[in-house]
Amino acid sequence: MSKLFMFEKPIGMRDTFPHLYSLKKEIRMNIENEMMNWGYEFMETPALEYDETVGEASAILDQQLFKLLDQQGRTLVLRPDMTTPIARVAASKLLKDRNPLRLAYAANLFRAQQREGGRPAEFEQIGVELIGDSTVSADAETIALMASVLKASGLKDFTIAVGHVGFLQELFLQIVGTEERAEKLRKHLYEKNYVGYRKHVDSLPLSSIDKKRLIDVLHIQGNGGSIEKAEALLEGEGGRGALRELEELLSVLKDYGVEDYVKMDVSLVSHMSYYTGVLFEVYADNVGFVLGNGGRYDNLLKKFGAEVGATGFGIRMDYLMEALGKSVVQAQPALILFSAERRKEAAAKAAEFRENQQPVIVQDVKGVTDLDSFTAGFKEVYSFIGKAGDQA
Amino acid sequence: MSKLFMFEKPIGMRDTFPHLYSLKKEIRMNIENEMMNWGYEFMETPALEYDETVGEASAILDQQLFKLLDQQGRTLVLRPDMTTPIARVAASKLLKDRNPLRLAYAANLFRAQQREGGRPAEFEQIGVELIGDSTVSADAETIALMASVLKASGLKDFTIAVGHVGFLQELFLQIVGTEERAEKLRKHLYEKNYVGYRKHVDSLPLSSIDKKRLIDVLHIQGNGGSIEKAEALLEGEGGRGALRELEELLSVLKDYGVEDYVKMDVSLVSHMSYYTGVLFEVYADNVGFVLGNGGRYDNLLKKFGAEVGATGFGIRMDYLMEALGKSVVQAQPALILFSAERRKEAAAKAAEFRENQQPVIVQDVKGVTDLDSFTAGFKEVYSFIGKAGDQA
Repeated sequence: MSKLFMFEKPIGMRDTFPHLYSLKKEIRMNIENEMMNWGYEFMETPALEYDETVGEASAILDQQLFKLLDQQGRTLVLRPDMTTPIARVAASKLLKDRNPLRLAYAANLFRAQQREGGRPAEFEQIGVELIGDSTVSADAETIALMASVLKASGLKDFTIAVGHVGFLQELFLQIVGTEERAEKLRKHLYEKNYVGYRKHVDSLPLSSIDKKRLIDVLHIQGNGGSIEKAEALLEGEGGRGALRELEELLSVLKDYGVEDYVKMDVSLVSHMSYYTGVLFEVYADNVGFVLGNGGRYDNLLKKFGAEVGATGFGIRMDYLMEALGKSVVQAQPALILFSAERRKEAAAKAAEFRENQQPVIVQDVKGVTDLDSFTAGFKEVYSFIGKAGDQA
Repeated sequence: MSKLFMFEKPIGMRDTFPHLYSLKKEIRMNIENEMMNWGYEFMETPALEYDETVGEASAILDQQLFKLLDQQGRTLVLRPDMTTPIARVAASKLLKDRNPLRLAYAANLFRAQQREGGRPAEFEQIGVELIGDSTVSADAETIALMASVLKASGLKDFTIAVGHVGFLQELFLQIVGTEERAEKLRKHLYEKNYVGYRKHVDSLPLSSIDKKRLIDVLHIQGNGGSIEKAEALLEGEGGRGALRELEELLSVLKDYGVEDYVKMDVSLVSHMSYYTGVLFEVYADNVGFVLGNGGRYDNLLKKFGAEVGATGFGIRMDYLMEALGKSVVQAQPALILFSAERRKEAAAKAAEFRENQQPVIVQDVKGVTDLDSFTAGFKEVYSFIGKAGDQA
């Protein structure tokens, strides 16, 4: 292979070195345990799915899908999300045994990136799906569980913004009249490009009152009075149902004791087009970016023939690790150095360590080129070298 | 999407349902802990690599590679093994910090399958690489570690067959004269097609003495005298070095206390073309098929510019689970059923369970369509329904 490129990885692909791997494993374990304590069962689906099933049902843009042809000429995709594969499994199998169904996953997802230095094209997401339950209790449970797993991961200061697809959809339609124009407004919001949003609103051929409605919606946040303020922006009946649902949800979240982590935000939108009701996203107060998101997707299961509602969330492990900013204290292994004639003694000493679950490396001195540099990496070194019985 | 195909998965792709997932996780954890006790550090590499680097350096047949084009038109492959990506990372980064280097992984690999009902096209492998150490101690360490992790997984009866690439290579060349003809013989052996091998030997234009040499090699197994018997089949000096190495390895394995799990087999060959020395494979005595394999690959690192030897092994999780044949006893969650007016009591009760690490599902009765069928799945049910304080 070309010497120039031999160490290169595809755009957006990353190695996870041992130190980061251990940290990720510890965080994942804490989150998994919490999810299992809430009765969620973990499962796994394949990395490759048919484009015509999971690829098309997923909410990910076509240009972000990694596609390939199988040997029969059918198009496969690397899974871009886990909600859609889990919907497939729930509809085809698991809902027959239990309904409602609580499932969880920790899996790598794949989304193609345009250029070097951008976002990762493969990343781990950990999340849950609560399928078959359309009550507000189900919405509240997923939000409460998200708060609970973030606390279990060690994250202290975070905010879960909660909104509803139905409110903004109706407000925008009332003001700009068509779905296409509404989508342009939403796009600025899910990109969190508020400057762009304001400029766009300014450029629209609307009355100053309507422009004000579109700007005012950005300022309606918080748990006291924001439902009323949002309602005041609406004309007619549409959109009020969504606000009633949010109002009920806020009161239910108090029963779950998580109201302090939650902030109502009626301007919240998502790039996941399958959401149909309550939606939410979480950001860590110290970093400001979104660590994960979720919401109700009552139409996705229908695509797989199951007429049931569902809700769930996913957390990005890489973003969470950045927000946690902590490092793991790894148990450093001891080192046993030996020469051939005392190999058996070295092996016996190592066995003692391992029986006590203490990590130890056993190394033939003949296999080490630079002994000083190698041993420098260890605090505890035992030596079984030469014929004598000397031992440090 | 088409109703007919909506549940279909690509050829060789499988879902892992919760019960199997838990079992796999438990086994993986036991193996990981053992590998860490031997000082191996876990890491992760991307699922996608460039074909011209990792794809070409891997020992997997081109027709088994899942290939796709990235948006720049370069060919990517889904990793078909982990040894090659780890060689890339070791050569580019980690060997600078520590040499010899002990790395481990648990990762899904991808190998395209020709037809339905065959082998899985995505499967988990767990393994180690010991890079930068060319001593016989390193060969022995990987074999001893393989025995140790299999014991840690709960497997009781297994055999590690140990051979050497160099012996059979030389014997075949001495008898059939060309590498091409030798490869035909080897192919039968790595497919474990002994009937085909015998037929093929029969068909060759060789003396009856040479045919006997080719057949006799199949019967040389076991730890007493097989080196001598193998040596008797050789003419001239070639191949004897390989047998000396095996002899030394067998004696070193006694120092590691694993000789009872090991069986010398000079007819052992591998489909992994990068092996250069000692090689081994393990099979469980109850199922007979190969669970994992390993060996020395002293030339692979050179492809990434590092002039160091290496050895390692990988275990197939799916085959190991089949050999273990056990099922995990899962902690079944308790169930708390509630109606809206008593949600807060239900949430408080659930919090008690979870503080004690006891899994519990909290379910709004309004979210359940068929209450009898739903509750039938639980042994422990608490009810917070209606205004009264009744509780089962």
